[in-house]
Amino acid sequence: MKTFLPILTILLFVSLISKAQRPPALNSPEVHADKRITFRYFSKKASKVTLSGEFLKTPVSMSKDTAGIWSVTVPPVTPDIYPYSFWVDSVQTADPSNTYIFANERFKRSIVDIPGDKPLVHSLQNVPHGKISYHYYKSATLGTTRPLLVYTPPGFNPNGKTRYPVLYLIHGGSDTEETWTKVGRANLIADNLIAQGKAKPMIIVMPYGNVRPSPMPDFTKDMISDIIPFVEANYPVLKESKGRAIAGFSVGGGQTLNIGLTNPDKFAYICSYAPYTATDEFKKNFTDWSPNIDQLNKQLKLFTVSVGTEDFLYEPVKQNIAMFKEKKLKVEPIIVPGGHTWMNCKQYLASTLQAIFK
Amino acid sequence: MKTFLPILTILLFVSLISKAQRPPALNSPEVHADKRITFRYFSKKASKVTLSGEFLKTPVSMSKDTAGIWSVTVPPVTPDIYPYSFWVDSVQTADPSNTYIFANERFKRSIVDIPGDKPLVHSLQNVPHGKISYHYYKSATLGTTRPLLVYTPPGFNPNGKTRYPVLYLIHGGSDTEETWTKVGRANLIADNLIAQGKAKPMIIVMPYGNVRPSPMPDFTKDMISDIIPFVEANYPVLKESKGRAIAGFSVGGGQTLNIGLTNPDKFAYICSYAPYTATDEFKKNFTDWSPNIDQLNKQLKLFTVSVGTEDFLYEPVKQNIAMFKEKKLKVEPIIVPGGHTWMNCKQYLASTLQAIFK
Repeated sequence: MKTFLPILTILLFVSLISKAQRPPALNSPEVHADKRITFRYFSKKASKVTLSGEFLKTPVSMSKDTAGIWSVTVPPVTPDIYPYSFWVDSVQTADPSNTYIFANERFKRSIVDIPGDKPLVHSLQNVPHGKISYHYYKSATLGTTRPLLVYTPPGFNPNGKTRYPVLYLIHGGSDTEETWTKVGRANLIADNLIAQGKAKPMIIVMPYGNVRPSPMPDFTKDMISDIIPFVEANYPVLKESKGRAIAGFSVGGGQTLNIGLTNPDKFAYICSYAPYTATDEFKKNFTDWSPNIDQLNKQLKLFTVSVGTEDFLYEPVKQNIAMFKEKKLKVEPIIVPGGHTWMNCKQYLASTLQAIFK
Repeated sequence: MKTFLPILTILLFVSLISKAQRPPALNSPEVHADKRITFRYFSKKASKVTLSGEFLKTPVSMSKDTAGIWSVTVPPVTPDIYPYSFWVDSVQTADPSNTYIFANERFKRSIVDIPGDKPLVHSLQNVPHGKISYHYYKSATLGTTRPLLVYTPPGFNPNGKTRYPVLYLIHGGSDTEETWTKVGRANLIADNLIAQGKAKPMIIVMPYGNVRPSPMPDFTKDMISDIIPFVEANYPVLKESKGRAIAGFSVGGGQTLNIGLTNPDKFAYICSYAPYTATDEFKKNFTDWSPNIDQLNKQLKLFTVSVGTEDFLYEPVKQNIAMFKEKKLKVEPIIVPGGHTWMNCKQYLASTLQAIFK
């Protein structure tokens, strides 16, 4: 039927692709059954392309075929989700063929997911799934409208009689409100642990934690005065401290300590992951800190500080743990292998979800 | 308090940044009050950096300062949201300093939002906001679990008496289920038009439309047999055709025609945006097509086909409109300025939202 001009249209479509200077469709990353991974990148002009990834100790060179496709296949990788990028001559770039980008304000890396022989705690499994809702809330504290993600568990009924406990979960310093789901898979970890009966059905609130230019003090107020009231006005949640937990990673781990330990009447569970604490707010809160320790220990049902032995913050985190212990605060250190990474974050969260609200 | 070692920690943090080879924090894009925009990119080694963007007719060169920061300020840009990227020597890259990435499987471009003097239809305004829920649903058709985004309007009550109409809204060929919200701002357009009383409160379902390797036929079945039943099982929606609309852009515009016109008992509103129709499914459906036109015209309360005069599909879209007219189908062409772009998409959607369910 000539009115459709399919060939002309295809040519026009190809012309659009060419106009937009898109690279050819490549299968990258290709995760093989034996957990080797092949990465591919197209460039006729580059003189050198290397692969950099958190599954590698050092970057590896890629080699070019006659069609201009650079590739490398890396040996089997321990199942997990890893950030990676290409260095094309002097330019760092995400993998154009990979949809999945590490949600971050400062860099654009891709992520690759290597499935385990048995499903991992963060993998998409055949279990009931909760959902993630993207909200806007008004922050009177910060004078603006901000994004907020809310995970509700499978079977959640907003109008039912059940009142859910809430975990407030904060990302790292240059991350966004999406990093805990897009990279940390908080929703799937919760789905899986709830399905196995290892975690209580709960709501997980993931705010945007960055406040420019001075993050910490305003965000504490935003959490207490704006975020928690918004959640409590819109979701059927427990409103006492034993129904609230707070956790966070890196800068968000520091925020967790600041917010949680200065508001122990609000959070019975405080779980800090590799906290970054070299901030004015932390110094203000914990220099010459003299809380009523007996009361605090009574208020806190769980206080954990997690860190990896290869984390660049390992030493200062250990020193903070020692400081809390010296104050006779019941802190539970969780020291594991690994670095300041989102591979570790997923493990920290999985551990937290199994420990809180019980 | 020496146990915190703030200076050492800061040095370690700087060392991490350096280790991760992050670029310095730059303000890019910087949208000025007069709507000029300054773009910045850091590279000491590049010999040439250019800016490419859909607000430009041709790429513009950026110039380097002594610190290795390349920049360019472009003259005032018509308020809208535009994709752009940098070409660093031969490498196309998103803006590392910009959080917002065009959701797409094939390219990684950044987006820049130039606000209007008066709020634009897609801007975040001081009105009640709906929310976007990220679901998984099981597709028996495709044998897998797939993502699905659902916008619910302000004041939505899942257990109330109101049954909402539903718009099924499909992205373009290499886009993802997030492109209509992240780039098309479907949620904010709906929030604004509902607040102004110009659109009915409705649910908008944004599925993932790509099926590899042969998109179209299976997706039609997935929509009818899996997506609609999932939505109707989980949301209080109208279940007759006058409570359902379907719309989509480019490849999704072709899917809209295929799905809608072969299921007129299910959709009373069909709105196709710059449809790409050079597909086997379209050929199969519309070569020697001989529907009962009187019945079809009665079933369809609205059938629009939108396209821009600079769209690379303008001619074939016009020919399809002519074909529908020749069949005596009541098609309403919406011919506007502009190209095959998401700037146009937002206008097409805003027009649709004001026309359906009335």
